Amino acid sequence: MSLSTVTFFTPVLDGLQEVEQLLRHQADDDHPDLRAALEHLLSSGGKRIRPTLALLTGQMLGGPHDKLVTLAAAVELLHNATLVHDDLIDGALLRRGMPTLNTRWSPAATVLTGDFMFSHAARLAADTDNLPLIKHFAETLAVIVNGELTQLFSARGVVSQENYYQRIYAKTASLMEMTTRAAAMVSSVDSSVTETLRLYGYHLGMAFQIVDDILDFTGEQDEVGKPIGSDLRQGLVTLPTLYYIEDHPDQAEVKSLLAGEYDGRREHMESLVQSIRSSDAIRRSFEKAHDYVDQATEKLAGMPDGIEKQSLLDLTHYIVDRRL
Amino acid sequence: MSLSTVTFFTPVLDGLQEVEQLLRHQADDDHPDLRAALEHLLSSGGKRIRPTLALLTGQMLGGPHDKLVTLAAAVELLHNATLVHDDLIDGALLRRGMPTLNTRWSPAATVLTGDFMFSHAARLAADTDNLPLIKHFAETLAVIVNGELTQLFSARGVVSQENYYQRIYAKTASLMEMTTRAAAMVSSVDSSVTETLRLYGYHLGMAFQIVDDILDFTGEQDEVGKPIGSDLRQGLVTLPTLYYIEDHPDQAEVKSLLAGEYDGRREHMESLVQSIRSSDAIRRSFEKAHDYVDQATEKLAGMPDGIEKQSLLDLTHYIVDRRL
Repeated sequence: MSLSTVTFFTPVLDGLQEVEQLLRHQADDDHPDLRAALEHLLSSGGKRIRPTLALLTGQMLGGPHDKLVTLAAAVELLHNATLVHDDLIDGALLRRGMPTLNTRWSPAATVLTGDFMFSHAARLAADTDNLPLIKHFAETLAVIVNGELTQLFSARGVVSQENYYQRIYAKTASLMEMTTRAAAMVSSVDSSVTETLRLYGYHLGMAFQIVDDILDFTGEQDEVGKPIGSDLRQGLVTLPTLYYIEDHPDQAEVKSLLAGEYDGRREHMESLVQSIRSSDAIRRSFEKAHDYVDQATEKLAGMPDGIEKQSLLDLTHYIVDRRL
Repeated sequence: MSLSTVTFFTPVLDGLQEVEQLLRHQADDDHPDLRAALEHLLSSGGKRIRPTLALLTGQMLGGPHDKLVTLAAAVELLHNATLVHDDLIDGALLRRGMPTLNTRWSPAATVLTGDFMFSHAARLAADTDNLPLIKHFAETLAVIVNGELTQLFSARGVVSQENYYQRIYAKTASLMEMTTRAAAMVSSVDSSVTETLRLYGYHLGMAFQIVDDILDFTGEQDEVGKPIGSDLRQGLVTLPTLYYIEDHPDQAEVKSLLAGEYDGRREHMESLVQSIRSSDAIRRSFEKAHDYVDQATEKLAGMPDGIEKQSLLDLTHYIVDRRL
């Protein structure tokens, strides 16, 4: 599905172009190397889901265009900054099918490029001139980093479903929740509307990450941009694996996984990835993603009459149907 | 010189204690590992010059105590966050005589701890509820990171004095300039007073870093907390070296340095460090630091009558006289 065939982008195409310009201008006064790095990061095929979410939400509420563009750029830059440090930490080689920054640059340059992006994201957030929004922005960064630290300090391996949901909240849903809430904040709507949109963003974000975790198993390498099952191969247990374990507690591969032996048994791991890929755990995971989407759309349905919600609804459905 | 014998700390001792508490509470809800790391960083003997500067400046102007404490904590946390990433990048083993975080933790944990501190510094800055201050805070972080990137991308070795001053502005003076300016901002004084205090902080910061760079040569290892001449040994040319080169252009060690051969000639480097240490370049560097201090105190002298400036003057003189 290319960008141009997805209808919900249409109302925000101009806004997204302004976001792109704002993002690319961040490195204007700086080093050619840094500009090149930022260009590489920004051109590596991200779909700009978060800026789209900010713009659609804000436009729906009649929010001020310039502030929404600024917010959208702040969110996208913050997201990309966390990816830069994440990829460095994980030693990831590919992101969206392109070489990560850390494969081309030294760890030092990668750390500082991430810091550079954080500082500019903070500056953009401040440019919304909205104090509660700025506080929420800083808090969300703290939640994201905290989630990464939890993951780092926890022994890798099997986690509870509760842990899984906490992790994907920190990793993904917290920023989407912040995005819709912040878009409502700059649009000066009633606090009940802001709260509804916060919940919408939360549920959308949870669905988004579950689908990402499914696609890690079911997608083609070309589409996912990294090897199939790479989460599990790196010891990261996501929802499809948790359901698969629940459904097949006595299987040899599962026992091996539960015993923490996957590192030593590559053939079990390969076989496990293939088994999960074609199992009912995928259907169950989609069901869960759809539950979250249903709750997200329910929030939208509860919005005051007269608000044009179709584009956000389209975006919401795209989140679970993408790349399938 | 211990903290308790330095008089200018007296008016801010209570405030500094509140700053300490606020800093330590940042990791309250998080991992024991992170709390321990933060504790290690905060207890490693920093003199809290920046929080002292914020509190003294704000108190002098009759600013609101709580906001000044919040600002002081934000500045100190931002400073420490940049140190954590710096030490990782430089592979530094010691900071203030204590092992750096990166010697004890993985690069991943060190990167994330720095990010954690950035996010909490941003949150504290936002808690001042002062929009221009928050923007200035984010911009200063951008200046600091940009300076680090410049240093990273530049070939190490001999730089011009102009480059040196740009570097120490980004590294040190920008944050001190921000600190005094921000303290004036929360104190709601005339913009001319804010501007005067910004210039005061700028000149103080420049002097502070020059003295740091002198102490790298003249201090005892116990006092500096790292090996004597370690900047130059790592290829970082500071003011004493620049003056020494100017004064001894024909010396063998200088020629070796200018030819970029220092890496291969350890004996030249050792001898050069000793030569600079006992040369007139040290006196000339102090003279330059005193020039900046004179300009800083001149700014204070230009402040409206009736403002009690003695503590800030004491702090200013301490900056150049410390550890000597």
